[in-house]
Amino acid sequence: MREVIDAIKKGKRFLITAHVNLEGDALGSQLAMKELLLGMGKDAFILDSDPIPEHYRFLPKAGEVSDKFDKAGVFDAAIVLDCPTLNRTGKVGDVIKAGAVPIINIDHHISNEKFGDVNWVEPNASSAGEMVFRLFKEAGVEMTKEVALSLYIAILTDTGSFNYDNTSSVTHEIAGELLGYGLDPALVSESVYERRSVKDINLLGLVLATIRVNKDGTIASLEVTKDMLDKTGADLAKSEGLINFARSIDGVKVAVLFKEDRKGCNKINISFRSKGNGNVIDVNKMASIFGGGGHTKASGCVITGSLKDVKKKVLSKIEEVLKNQ
Amino acid sequence: MREVIDAIKKGKRFLITAHVNLEGDALGSQLAMKELLLGMGKDAFILDSDPIPEHYRFLPKAGEVSDKFDKAGVFDAAIVLDCPTLNRTGKVGDVIKAGAVPIINIDHHISNEKFGDVNWVEPNASSAGEMVFRLFKEAGVEMTKEVALSLYIAILTDTGSFNYDNTSSVTHEIAGELLGYGLDPALVSESVYERRSVKDINLLGLVLATIRVNKDGTIASLEVTKDMLDKTGADLAKSEGLINFARSIDGVKVAVLFKEDRKGCNKINISFRSKGNGNVIDVNKMASIFGGGGHTKASGCVITGSLKDVKKKVLSKIEEVLKNQ
Repeated sequence: MREVIDAIKKGKRFLITAHVNLEGDALGSQLAMKELLLGMGKDAFILDSDPIPEHYRFLPKAGEVSDKFDKAGVFDAAIVLDCPTLNRTGKVGDVIKAGAVPIINIDHHISNEKFGDVNWVEPNASSAGEMVFRLFKEAGVEMTKEVALSLYIAILTDTGSFNYDNTSSVTHEIAGELLGYGLDPALVSESVYERRSVKDINLLGLVLATIRVNKDGTIASLEVTKDMLDKTGADLAKSEGLINFARSIDGVKVAVLFKEDRKGCNKINISFRSKGNGNVIDVNKMASIFGGGGHTKASGCVITGSLKDVKKKVLSKIEEVLKNQ
Repeated sequence: MREVIDAIKKGKRFLITAHVNLEGDALGSQLAMKELLLGMGKDAFILDSDPIPEHYRFLPKAGEVSDKFDKAGVFDAAIVLDCPTLNRTGKVGDVIKAGAVPIINIDHHISNEKFGDVNWVEPNASSAGEMVFRLFKEAGVEMTKEVALSLYIAILTDTGSFNYDNTSSVTHEIAGELLGYGLDPALVSESVYERRSVKDINLLGLVLATIRVNKDGTIASLEVTKDMLDKTGADLAKSEGLINFARSIDGVKVAVLFKEDRKGCNKINISFRSKGNGNVIDVNKMASIFGGGGHTKASGCVITGSLKDVKKKVLSKIEEVLKNQ
């Protein structure tokens, strides 16, 4: 962390970026990072490969997040947040390489490839937001209520409201301190989580009607068909949480979601989730059987074929793995 | 709080109780309270009017929660947790009155009627669990990992995973300290929240298909019919979260859920929820128009009539209130 502060002291103007598919932690940590740099008397700009999603436009100074590459200009160093590899920054990675400047890599993923000139990787931190919080303390820069809000949202979203296993005692301590800046947790929660559209609800209803559980109640599956997407007009990007409804059934060890392609190109996108204490099914291994991958409890793969055939193949494979466990 | 400790010191055997419809805070705070009393060299037993719900049987020493009135025996004082009135304890209230012993009232509801001989009411506490945590500190009794788990679940559930407005900096500090006893937040979360049945999911799917939003997107309604309950066999007691799907739609100011009676007795049970910053619709007032009540952001009422007529009446009333706002 000290090296990060030292590297910042050396430069004047900084490019700040994060990964593609911007979410709460990427956005909150970047916005707070910019304020930290300004507080240290530096100049900084945020450049991302993707635009800020509509439902995060309420973030303080959200307008600072830009995907306008022509306005990047010259910079002395690049600060990359929440990215295990430089590739994850998308096209911004090319801008950084072209700039040939030092890279400051700040991340909490255990898989981080230490691609920076300065690498500060904390796998025990819940989020990049938690790390930027610590930078404010280390640099002795005062936090505003706006910065506190950005960091709180980074932590809230990356820990699934303090429910994921990356939540630690330190995470709660920091969240408590951030609320102390006058944040209203209920209003923040509304702003972040209560952003569904009627289309999303319609899609959810149709998807839930497809739920199937195997005989002993250990495997639950759901499906999203092209027809459902056409009928509801729902945004597939927002379908991320659908599989949790299958996972949330008591007794389920593996949940699977089958998604037909919107374009109808005969490719089935499959997500796996597992749960349990002790002998959890490793769905990373399971996905890798079909050429995919991920983590022990969350993974995915893509298989070419009809929904019916792919379902049959994948579900019987899961049965087999569970039987041999 | 000091008076509570003094009152405990005076007695030998204590009855511990909480409200009917036991949930996480009632259960967690009672189980921890019993351990506190044992730690202070006292004897105690938990007596509740309702049995412990199936999905909370995983709580440490859950078997201590009893609804067997004949085993109450003699006690020197009664400790009532999480109840604004003695009535909320259900039939246990009669046992306490018959015992003619001092009542120690420990609660965090602002509406608490101070019905005890000792009254410790903290409207700023997130939960009764948070108050029992403070009692452990005050009494200097060591907490075990099991006690920490009970208290953590009390706080987690009563704050909606730290999302409700009763969450404070202190709440997070305490949650952080409790995790320090070696709790795994992800496993706790699974145990508490991932307990749906396939029936619940089926009901949810049917209910979501009924969603209707008014022209300007400010009122969203859902319905649960007798037919859906019969068809799915779902437990109506678990339908509490259904209205949140209506509330979670972007732009909605008032969400309403209409529930037909399972017995088909022509009574419609109605729940209201509101959201927003500043000029939130007061659904307590709205429910009171129909003889019901509750809080500003959550209320309910019961109206006799057909689902169709009741819906029409209530929805047009809400339109009227919103127009005059």
